[in-house]
Amino acid sequence: NTYRIAAIAGDGIGKEVMPEGLRALRTAADRYGFGVEVTEFDYASADYYLEHGQMLPDGWFEELRGFDAIFFGAVGWPDVVPDHVSLWGSLLQFRRHFDQYVNLRPVRLLPGITSPLAGRKPGDVDFYVVRENTEGEYSSVGGRMFEGTDRETVIQDTVMTRTGVDRILKYAFELARKREKKHLTSATKSNGISITMPYWDERVEAMAAGYEDVRTDKFHIDILCANFVLHPDWFDVVVASNLFGDILSDLGPACTGTIGVAPSGNINPDRTFPSLFEPVHGSAPDIAGKGIANPVGQIWSASMMLEHLGEPEAAAAILSAIESVLAAGGDTLTRDLGGTGTTASLGEAIASTIRG
Amino acid sequence: NTYRIAAIAGDGIGKEVMPEGLRALRTAADRYGFGVEVTEFDYASADYYLEHGQMLPDGWFEELRGFDAIFFGAVGWPDVVPDHVSLWGSLLQFRRHFDQYVNLRPVRLLPGITSPLAGRKPGDVDFYVVRENTEGEYSSVGGRMFEGTDRETVIQDTVMTRTGVDRILKYAFELARKREKKHLTSATKSNGISITMPYWDERVEAMAAGYEDVRTDKFHIDILCANFVLHPDWFDVVVASNLFGDILSDLGPACTGTIGVAPSGNINPDRTFPSLFEPVHGSAPDIAGKGIANPVGQIWSASMMLEHLGEPEAAAAILSAIESVLAAGGDTLTRDLGGTGTTASLGEAIASTIRG
Ligand SMILES: CC(C)[C@H](C(=O)O)[C@@H](O)C(=O)O
Ligand SMILES: CC(C)[C@H](C(=O)O)[C@@H](O)C(=O)O
Repeated sequence: NTYRIAAIAGDGIGKEVMPEGLRALRTAADRYGFGVEVTEFDYASADYYLEHGQMLPDGWFEELRGFDAIFFGAVGWPDVVPDHVSLWGSLLQFRRHFDQYVNLRPVRLLPGITSPLAGRKPGDVDFYVVRENTEGEYSSVGGRMFEGTDRETVIQDTVMTRTGVDRILKYAFELARKREKKHLTSATKSNGISITMPYWDERVEAMAAGYEDVRTDKFHIDILCANFVLHPDWFDVVVASNLFGDILSDLGPACTGTIGVAPSGNINPDRTFPSLFEPVHGSAPDIAGKGIANPVGQIWSASMMLEHLGEPEAAAAILSAIESVLAAGGDTLTRDLGGTGTTASLGEAIASTIRG
Repeated sequence: NTYRIAAIAGDGIGKEVMPEGLRALRTAADRYGFGVEVTEFDYASADYYLEHGQMLPDGWFEELRGFDAIFFGAVGWPDVVPDHVSLWGSLLQFRRHFDQYVNLRPVRLLPGITSPLAGRKPGDVDFYVVRENTEGEYSSVGGRMFEGTDRETVIQDTVMTRTGVDRILKYAFELARKREKKHLTSATKSNGISITMPYWDERVEAMAAGYEDVRTDKFHIDILCANFVLHPDWFDVVVASNLFGDILSDLGPACTGTIGVAPSGNINPDRTFPSLFEPVHGSAPDIAGKGIANPVGQIWSASMMLEHLGEPEAAAAILSAIESVLAAGGDTLTRDLGGTGTTASLGEAIASTIRG
């Protein structure tokens, strides 16, 4: 069995953590007896944009659609391309055109990582954020009127469809049903956002009727963010719209110590197109080029990718290698984790643990 | 000098904390030699809605506009009225029709309150969230199409105007300029919300040009929420759109221990209409009616109101009474603060400290 992987490193520390992600991936493949055939692409980057005036080649869709998965680093280099241009010109196109409607992000306190929350230890925080990934607040519908005058008015639509809302809710309820706690929390703001969010609530209620074994509750996004800090142990599966999911899946990892280690899957559950796996962190211009970026988010993303591809043993081996290297601590760790190591030293330590 | 105050307790614990807010207010008035003439209103509550089928009487605008300020408790009782009906039928009307375009919310770690963040102490966290309070994501423009079918589509507009954005930015820059650190942080999401948020960034940049003494930076809302947890000491004045400000001003107080003590001012800086002062917490149906709600958010709101009315000494006296009662600790405190007291015992302890 050989999986065809498209590797897109992108910008900044994306280029530095990608080799470590690939190292873990290949090591796991060797150990568990399957193949990976990796093709690297240099687009979805500021360098590519500088040369071509666009983030992606015209034929990207046809070129990438045949791969089994896309392994992605990070995109964004605001000194060269405004963020909304680079993101809408690449990552957000992949999510939309490959219909990766689930953005799945585990929030888990790992051994060896100090939580900024007082007194929390591994096991206390262990949940998933299930984020809608194709519609909602991330629309490209809207515009500007009376430009440059005192009457200037800018409008942008949030768009929710029954198809879009129901399929993400279904995914989240199915996930909750499979877990021990069987608990789903919906992120809403129906008291203030008075048209789309009451609709979201309605659909949650309708879907919940089919999942009586799942305990369902909801919080407005403001108090939900507060509760991530005050009561992270309350959560099991949290389902949210595109924007709210974006916020919660940075805040959650922050509560578990660092967003540097958090992974994510942009998943097309129907498998009509490839899914995309990437760390939650961005391109981090402030530390790029120094070889000190933490590669764990990228490596953990490789684990999620293998899970999705149907290699659960290899996926588990990568995650457990991450956990044991972090728990052991010491100099190989990167500075953000209290070590003195580099991207490569931490990546190599994890790979050699996978090797066994 | 006598101030005319409209007191609206609202629902749930709003009714329980309001008397303690008024007690502090009257005590400060006696001590500092000014008058307060309080008129209580029973509308903006579920009880009123049950009787009248609407949250406010038709003449509310004329009735309230002549007051010097509105002192507000909390509204919302979802078992009786859906939240979007009760809120859009009351509080959000006040904010909009009285043009209270600034929602000002201090985030401060008080003595005697344990932060959920490891190792943070009073002084480490002390900033303001300045929230736009009349437009943005809280619009009532939009609707539903293909209702009840698979094509069902729901759309809601975010609306930003140059007038609306510039005036909140100006207020925030002026506030930053008056503070020691002179540091303003803008909350954005221009990488994902690609029409309104790049506009917000543009206006921030334009306004910043007139405030060269203010150090200005910006974060996307996802990483900004993460940084509230990881680096709350980074912030001084944080300016945000309506929704982002809502989120940040619950998250900030959570990082300082509890949203139970946080106050807010819905301010009309032009003084064309009364401003409104209210705790950040809601009506809390789960603990309502037990006499155990923490009244500090309401009492601190009285302090903000007196500051706004031009009684800075009395305002400071209330805040310092809160601080010394919390620092002293003990049984008078409510349960959420580790005491065994009631809403009234904590309110009385603060009032007697104001009395001196
Ligand atoms: C109750 C709700 C509509 C309100 C808001 O979102 O503005 C509240 O959360 C607040 O922050 O005052
Ligand atoms: C870079 C940005 C557009 C993106 C998003 O908001 O989706 C990122 O924050 C993420 O969470 O993947």
